[in-house]
Amino acid sequence: MAIAGIKALTFDTFGTVVDWRTSIINDFTAFGRKKKLKVNWEPFVDEWKSAYRPGMDAVRTGKSQWMTVDRIYRIKLDEVLSKYGLGGMPEDDRVYLNRAWHRLNPWPDAVAGLKRLKKKYVISPLSNGDVSCLTNMAKHGGLPWDVILCAELFKHYKPDPETYLGAIAYLGLQPHEVMMVAAHNYDLKNARSHGMRTAFVARPTEYGPLQTENLVAEEDWDIVAGDFGELATKLGA
Amino acid sequence: MAIAGIKALTFDTFGTVVDWRTSIINDFTAFGRKKKLKVNWEPFVDEWKSAYRPGMDAVRTGKSQWMTVDRIYRIKLDEVLSKYGLGGMPEDDRVYLNRAWHRLNPWPDAVAGLKRLKKKYVISPLSNGDVSCLTNMAKHGGLPWDVILCAELFKHYKPDPETYLGAIAYLGLQPHEVMMVAAHNYDLKNARSHGMRTAFVARPTEYGPLQTENLVAEEDWDIVAGDFGELATKLGA
Repeated sequence: MAIAGIKALTFDTFGTVVDWRTSIINDFTAFGRKKKLKVNWEPFVDEWKSAYRPGMDAVRTGKSQWMTVDRIYRIKLDEVLSKYGLGGMPEDDRVYLNRAWHRLNPWPDAVAGLKRLKKKYVISPLSNGDVSCLTNMAKHGGLPWDVILCAELFKHYKPDPETYLGAIAYLGLQPHEVMMVAAHNYDLKNARSHGMRTAFVARPTEYGPLQTENLVAEEDWDIVAGDFGELATKLGA
Repeated sequence: MAIAGIKALTFDTFGTVVDWRTSIINDFTAFGRKKKLKVNWEPFVDEWKSAYRPGMDAVRTGKSQWMTVDRIYRIKLDEVLSKYGLGGMPEDDRVYLNRAWHRLNPWPDAVAGLKRLKKKYVISPLSNGDVSCLTNMAKHGGLPWDVILCAELFKHYKPDPETYLGAIAYLGLQPHEVMMVAAHNYDLKNARSHGMRTAFVARPTEYGPLQTENLVAEEDWDIVAGDFGELATKLGA
């Protein structure tokens, strides 16, 4: 069996463990209501999120020096606020909104599945999020991580090899003893290229009702599961 | 009050959270009984442990390149085994014994105190132990860390400034928002020099019945507590 000998599971987090889009839209909607702001937050959030991949890729290709995800988002937040006529928003409110990424809610099946998996395996994020973001998010949502591994520790963003290989090394394990869990095929493709085991959990509404990518497993990943409960069952946890 | 505004607590681990000496002596005694070895494990363990500080200081002063604590101990383990007439021990057994540092037991008050503190603060080790050691130890002993911060992430051992400053930065906090908790005065002295808050918890039997150092607080630390329960009470947790 391809999944024998697994000792640790590393999880992509944004989209795989937490429902960032719904969380942030709800968070901003509540903020906007309190502050009496008339903004359509869905396109606002989608535009804000669009800075994520290019910001990380600028670091990955050497166009930009190391920059945290919190910083990438903060730069874009200021830009989008201005575009939406909110250029006068006070600093405290900007800090609060930017920290919405620390207040993301787990998908409904995530915490129960992680608790089962934790009994049998070391469980960790392997995320492009920052240490403080993942730590605060775990506290907010009750994610029972054993350790927090992420891009900021390596000063490299996924899919740079340093992230996968660095996580394996910190866990003190061999690549085939670690399984990457993700809702994104590119992440699993890269993990597999370094000898890791792979599990795909579909999150077909991560990007909202019009999502077109990552609706299904695109390779013969070691496990394909509908949610974390099924993943735990398939891993004997 | 000096302790207002604290958001996270970082804990020295060996000696402060876990009782390494009793744990390892018991672990080796059980192993020796199973293998029918006639060894006095107390001096064996004390001699083994004596490699810790010099090994780290060799890294700190540039005499040695970065080396994990697991590796520092493994080199010394092989040396002490030979000295005790056990030079023929198989590799599997050496690996098992060296991993005794991953199987340390918490002091009796530690887990209950940490659980109280975790409700109000982010809690993390700030240890010279390796990531895998601290992760496995937490799983073994039920230590409910929110995140694992340690020397291996910085490639610097305490008391190098990079460890304290690196932990504060990863937590996304200011120095005065983080309290260092330790049973060792030198650790608190260094933490304070970087603006951190300080809490001393005495562990007067860490080094066994003949311990001569760190029996009492040697400066006016922000908190002095007899155990983690008292620490939690003094921090309002």
